[in-house]
Amino acid sequence: MAQRGSRPDRPARERVLEAALDLFAEQGVSGTSLQMIADRMGVTKAAVYHQFRTKEDIVFAVVGPALDRLLEIADAIDAEPDHQRRFTATLAGIIDLIITHRRLAAIVQFDPMVARLVRGHPAHASFERIRSLFTGPDPDGSTLVAAAMVSGGLIVAGVDPALVRLSDDELREHLFDTATRLLRPPPGPPSAAG
Amino acid sequence: MAQRGSRPDRPARERVLEAALDLFAEQGVSGTSLQMIADRMGVTKAAVYHQFRTKEDIVFAVVGPALDRLLEIADAIDAEPDHQRRFTATLAGIIDLIITHRRLAAIVQFDPMVARLVRGHPAHASFERIRSLFTGPDPDGSTLVAAAMVSGGLIVAGVDPALVRLSDDELREHLFDTATRLLRPPPGPPSAAG
Repeated sequence: MAQRGSRPDRPARERVLEAALDLFAEQGVSGTSLQMIADRMGVTKAAVYHQFRTKEDIVFAVVGPALDRLLEIADAIDAEPDHQRRFTATLAGIIDLIITHRRLAAIVQFDPMVARLVRGHPAHASFERIRSLFTGPDPDGSTLVAAAMVSGGLIVAGVDPALVRLSDDELREHLFDTATRLLRPPPGPPSAAG
Repeated sequence: MAQRGSRPDRPARERVLEAALDLFAEQGVSGTSLQMIADRMGVTKAAVYHQFRTKEDIVFAVVGPALDRLLEIADAIDAEPDHQRRFTATLAGIIDLIITHRRLAAIVQFDPMVARLVRGHPAHASFERIRSLFTGPDPDGSTLVAAAMVSGGLIVAGVDPALVRLSDDELREHLFDTATRLLRPPPGPPSAAG
């Protein structure tokens, strides 16, 4: 609760990012300019420019930490030999990431400009690796659709107005349970029991 | 299959809408101009302007038929007294709508400009009525999250690259099954059996 705020003593850089994220959600990334960010903050465009040279730099600063974390989650898949634990840790990691950045997932997924930036980030391949963990090899249509529904559900969970009254802990618990019901984690191979 | 195409003998109006939808998906609605639509079609801006006076008119023409259909689906809820049939018909109607307009749902849901237009359309209240049918009255957190996941999953199903290889019929069947697993339609009240 109350993690975000607009205390004037927060670092200027952080206040730029906060105003930018508000405007991205309201106007879209394409519909947001440095001037609009400055107006929202009540400062000059030069003050914003002192922190970030382009809107693209701001988008990277907003999205970058979440992508770095996504990459770490995907890299941890290979480091965990137990299938069941790998599945659970990855799903829990993704859900934590989404709860930490509640509004970001829908912007990353659906804004065409952001999508282009994400395609150039090393984390881009992580989406596919994580999806493969959830579907297993050679998924059938039913499994693909279940994984797509989990993916879509997690993406919109942060912005769905019906969910704003849930605390972070409730949201985390129910997202985990619902996703697990759909994805039915496969039993580990016999060797994993040894 | 092959329902869309760019046959030059199609009505000019329809070709404008098709080019607009391509650009909305690539650039976002805010990032698309009448000039860009004209360039994509290889015609002058005046030719586009002959069909539509503003980008807002184009957005309404793209989104309007789907919203009209959504309103019909929501109105049919009240006309069907049997609870189980009401649930099934509504879910099937929504899934058909999404498959018919595969790319549209994500644009409607996530573009801030489109979202503002949708809030002024009579169909806007339908989202809430349909959601209530799926959650029942006084839903708990678990039910809210399951309904949000279904909603998110249906929204992204049309644009998820992992699902493009599924035919419309396969997608319809699996979406219905997956959504039903999550939403667990309640049994009809005893009176419905009479």
